[in-house]
Order: sequence, then C-alpha cells, then structure tokens
Amino acid sequence: MVRIEHIGIAVKDLEKANELFAKLFGQPQYKEEAVQSEHVTTSFFQVGPNKIELLEATSDESAIAKYLEKKSEGIHHIAFEVDDIEAEMKRLAGEGFQLLNEKPKAGADNKLVCFLHPKTTNGVLVELCQEIKSK
Amino acid sequence: MVRIEHIGIAVKDLEKANELFAKLFGQPQYKEEAVQSEHVTTSFFQVGPNKIELLEATSDESAIAKYLEKKSEGIHHIAFEVDDIEAEMKRLAGEGFQLLNEKPKAGADNKLVCFLHPKTTNGVLVELCQEIKSK
Repeated sequence: MVRIEHIGIAVKDLEKANELFAKLFGQPQYKEEAVQSEHVTTSFFQVGPNKIELLEATSDESAIAKYLEKKSEGIHHIAFEVDDIEAEMKRLAGEGFQLLNEKPKAGADNKLVCFLHPKTTNGVLVELCQEIKSK
Repeated sequence: MVRIEHIGIAVKDLEKANELFAKLFGQPQYKEEAVQSEHVTTSFFQVGPNKIELLEATSDESAIAKYLEKKSEGIHHIAFEVDDIEAEMKRLAGEGFQLLNEKPKAGADNKLVCFLHPKTTNGVLVELCQEIKSK
C-alpha cells in the first residue's frame, strides 16, 4: 500500500460541513463530485499528500444514509492507494479478509475501488483504490 | 496542516490486532510504545508518508477503554501534522473549535499533541501533532 489516499467522513449536511472543514484546514474544498451509483455527493480537501472526502447521502439507499442512521456523523472509512488493485485484492482475500466487491468498481475521483468488510479488519472499513489511467 | 500524520485505531487485543494489520499491510509494526500518562500501549505501522497507530487500553481510566465501552473497535482519531502547534491551536480556537487541552501535551512517538472536541468537528476526534525537536 502506497499511502493513505483519503479518509472518508460521513456528514449530514455537506454545505455546512464544507464550511467547517474549510476552517479546520484553512482552505476550501477543491472539488465536489456526485457518485450516482453510490447515491452520494462528495467533496474533497487536500492535506499535503492526503485527502479528506466528505460524503453526504443523496438517497436512503446510500450506505452513508444507513451509516448515519445506525451510528452518527464521523469517520466512515480509510482508503489506501495501491499500485495494482487486482493483485492486492487477491493477496488480501488469501489472507482471510472479506472483500465487499469481487471485482474493482468505479468510485469517486477517477478511482477503481474495493472495500473490505469491517468485521475482518478490526471494525475499520478499509477501501483500496487505484487511479484509473487514461489510455 | 502538513499531512495526515497517523490514524489512531482502538483495539481490544494489541497482539491479535498487530497480526491482523501486519497481514493487511504486508509488513509488521515497526515499534510499540507505552504512553503511561494516557494509559495506553500503542503500536505503529508505516504506510508511505503516513502511519497507523493501534491503541490498547492498559487501565479503565484510559480514553480508549471508555471509547470501547461506549462504541466498538475501530477508527478512534485522525492526527494531522502541523509545523507550529501553538499557532495552529490559537488559529483553531479563534475559528470556534474547542481544544481538549489548553497547552500542547506530550503524546506517543515523540510528539506534542492537542485534541479538538469531536462535537465541534463533525464527530471526528482530531489530533494536532508536532514532532519534538531535540536541542
């Protein structure tokens, strides 16, 4: 794994959270992006080599809506950048981690992603992500 | 803020968690350290420019013991590296964030640290940390 690519934070109100995190980091978000397949709107802050991704649900079907219902606003997942997501998925499955998707899927920010089930990772929702390279 | 210095993860059994995260990262922890003032034992994994800190309580007084009682194992806090912790504490207090300690205090891994109250940071326990420089 190359680095922490981003930390995902579940928020109820993206506009208010954008203001709050802009104060925290001393700079505004650098982009917002809807991920329709996941029913979320995301916004991104850069902190040196890492990013913070705020996630607001756009529908009750969203994993973020379900998370907010069960728990509360706060850290939702850690995403690690990997060089070869398929190789890493294979390695981790072999180590006993449960993958939440069998094949890499398209996520926000031009990434292929795969999540690991938190019950196999000490309660931490781990995302693997790899930049989609343009041909 | 310079980068995500580390993510702190609350665990019940450090030995088991060390094994699990060694499998996840494909490499073992590089150090363990007791922080007696906080009643925790920590272990650290390096992931590129970032670290993962596992935290096990050594007494019921520990914030980690209280966290595990109320919630469950998982991500406990995000620590951001800052260049000048006192200046950053002053800036953030001025922005309305509540500091959990008025002066920087000694943390694990040779750092001065300050925590922000999660009620003022969207449910996220944020740590600021600055390396203690030897004279």
